[in-house]
Amino acid sequence: MTIKNAFYAQSGGVTAVINASACGVIEAARRHPERIANVYAGRNGIIGALTEDLIDTNQESNADIAALRTTPSGAFGSCRYKLKGLDANKREYERLIEVFKAHNIGYFFYNGGGDSADTCFKVSQLSETMGYPVQAIHVPKTVDNDLPITDNCPGFGSVAKYIATSTLEASFDVRSMAKTSTKIFVIEVMGRHAGWIAAAGALVADQGIPVVTLFPEIEFNQETFLAAVKTKVEQYGYCSIVVSEGCHWPDGKFLAEQGTKDAFGHAQLGGAAPVVANMVKQALGYKFHWAVADYLQRAARHLASKTDVDQAYALGQKAVELALAGHNSVMPTVVRKSSSPYIWEIDFAPLSKVANVEKFMPRDFISADGYGITAPCREYLYPLMQGEDYPPFDNGLPRYITLKNSAVERKLAEFKL
Amino acid sequence: MTIKNAFYAQSGGVTAVINASACGVIEAARRHPERIANVYAGRNGIIGALTEDLIDTNQESNADIAALRTTPSGAFGSCRYKLKGLDANKREYERLIEVFKAHNIGYFFYNGGGDSADTCFKVSQLSETMGYPVQAIHVPKTVDNDLPITDNCPGFGSVAKYIATSTLEASFDVRSMAKTSTKIFVIEVMGRHAGWIAAAGALVADQGIPVVTLFPEIEFNQETFLAAVKTKVEQYGYCSIVVSEGCHWPDGKFLAEQGTKDAFGHAQLGGAAPVVANMVKQALGYKFHWAVADYLQRAARHLASKTDVDQAYALGQKAVELALAGHNSVMPTVVRKSSSPYIWEIDFAPLSKVANVEKFMPRDFISADGYGITAPCREYLYPLMQGEDYPPFDNGLPRYITLKNSAVERKLAEFKL
Repeated sequence: MTIKNAFYAQSGGVTAVINASACGVIEAARRHPERIANVYAGRNGIIGALTEDLIDTNQESNADIAALRTTPSGAFGSCRYKLKGLDANKREYERLIEVFKAHNIGYFFYNGGGDSADTCFKVSQLSETMGYPVQAIHVPKTVDNDLPITDNCPGFGSVAKYIATSTLEASFDVRSMAKTSTKIFVIEVMGRHAGWIAAAGALVADQGIPVVTLFPEIEFNQETFLAAVKTKVEQYGYCSIVVSEGCHWPDGKFLAEQGTKDAFGHAQLGGAAPVVANMVKQALGYKFHWAVADYLQRAARHLASKTDVDQAYALGQKAVELALAGHNSVMPTVVRKSSSPYIWEIDFAPLSKVANVEKFMPRDFISADGYGITAPCREYLYPLMQGEDYPPFDNGLPRYITLKNSAVERKLAEFKL
Repeated sequence: MTIKNAFYAQSGGVTAVINASACGVIEAARRHPERIANVYAGRNGIIGALTEDLIDTNQESNADIAALRTTPSGAFGSCRYKLKGLDANKREYERLIEVFKAHNIGYFFYNGGGDSADTCFKVSQLSETMGYPVQAIHVPKTVDNDLPITDNCPGFGSVAKYIATSTLEASFDVRSMAKTSTKIFVIEVMGRHAGWIAAAGALVADQGIPVVTLFPEIEFNQETFLAAVKTKVEQYGYCSIVVSEGCHWPDGKFLAEQGTKDAFGHAQLGGAAPVVANMVKQALGYKFHWAVADYLQRAARHLASKTDVDQAYALGQKAVELALAGHNSVMPTVVRKSSSPYIWEIDFAPLSKVANVEKFMPRDFISADGYGITAPCREYLYPLMQGEDYPPFDNGLPRYITLKNSAVERKLAEFKL
């Protein structure tokens, strides 16, 4: 067997567990030194490959690589950079091959969401289209949970756990205050196109919390929304509202776009949460508080789902095993065998069936009135949040690893992006 | 010895650990059935006393009371209601005495911040001013950390841990994205008058994170602020910004007050975080993300500081011990014996020295440029965040207790607030 190097890169928005996948890839590769000499990580994703800015992961100790499992964010840097098609940008593909050749790279592991799956698919065709033998395996990752075939996407389960927990905690808070003060708590969550994360917030209803959830899948209707909130407050004395950043009016305009201008005449960018909170205040007079979780939700490794961490690691590990078994152009996937008890295993799917396919939340996961979730949705969500997997703490704060990230010596001329 | 009942109430904004103090009070009382027959909790704070809406905590099992230790929020309901002075509102004090007499209440435990200490002090004088023998003990609680004499206030250490952790996690995230995308992350934290919580966010500098912190103690200077951010981004490629909700211009106007109006001409209430983020974008062009933690921070029992939980419990327990030892008009306090190793003990102080005194952050806790913290501040903060004390989890979510909160039978005529 020939010894080759592997290339690994992180792509798009990072998560609490993408480094667990990196850990799975690198630890699996280290178990096969007869096949994989080194894993070169792209500094800032695919940009690292194009600019020959490679990180020598062999310089990192086993302990530091193991610590990736409990560290959020992208340890090697990520990027938002989508390769165009081969016809539109042959230059970049030629450059990738040049870099792969110069560094004896035979395996390409790309860790990302939908756009990255498309890039990975294109790279997986290089052998056929440009005669360079490389095996490209996509490692799924996205808090948006919108990749097809796989039952769920690493990163999502931890965000779901964080949002459900945070909504529960803040709801207990507003319940305590409601008699004389705050009656409405609004939390804004990620999910521009799909309401998976918002659905996790809606789970607090199972603990007796009155909650109204606004999904991007459902056109916003101010009248029925306000009526739903009013009904909850009159019955319970308070109400929590979970609003997806992607919640929009029938004409497609996001709630967050209010067309307001600041003192200098600049467009004012706000969140959906303050818009919703003010709307309730104007119409119903209830005192409110609101939060925008933003990066806190996808970076919250301190509250990661153990299921999510385990799956992220297993998918990274499986990617290497698939490559060593000779596969190309595939993505390892999570298969749900049973929801209760939750049983999952890892399989894989051809990238041709993954690239450019977006998985939406089934309409029957959202309740008929559009403001809650259904039993099938609950059955889907709970297993993904199961288990805790706390990071180590030092002096009151989580101990997260920052790697050395030493550069591999360059062999080629500079390349302009 | 006479057997009396105790009254316990939660007041003002709730915290992740105020129920740990409630647990300390009730468990200590249960250890002395020969002195304290029952702890009646005020439903929604002092309003429960005025309206004779008392909760019979003897109806709660030992296990459920123990579960208060790991449950955030105010289990009996809180309120924002400040008793006026005796001269201004004799009626309310007479009513309190009427309720205390009707229910044989001899001990008054009031769990709150500065305003509540003042109320508790007034109640402690009833024996002298109105001839009703009651011992009033204040149990400190406030995330604002602004009570005098006590080294710190329960609730604060857990918020500090949450904000420092969240800022660290989100900073790792933006560091991963900065090459091609987000370069600025802004987190807005509580603290209208004091920058204690913002200071906790500033701790991430110790982990190599470039951070600029905006304190309410320092008048906002747009020019030096933008210069500080620019310097960090040019050196590190990214920058985190921690902004206190109390951050304000030299004329006292909060940053969050932008005088903007929505499409209907209503004043637009936003947070300080989007204002700061947009300001940086306009001036320096950096892509940003922002979060407003709001209730999430003070309700985050899932990430409570063990030190904070232990102290909250100990202060509740001590309140009962002080009452049984014959004290009146006092507040148990935390005394710091040493920072490293952290050694603390519980003492107590007269309420006359606590009521209406606000403790601010010492100026020498903020760095000379106004955008960071100093060594004495670090030495003060770290011990308060030490240790983890996770709640139990069921099915992926924290198991928080909702008590039965059965009402004590009313004996008196209705009272209008």
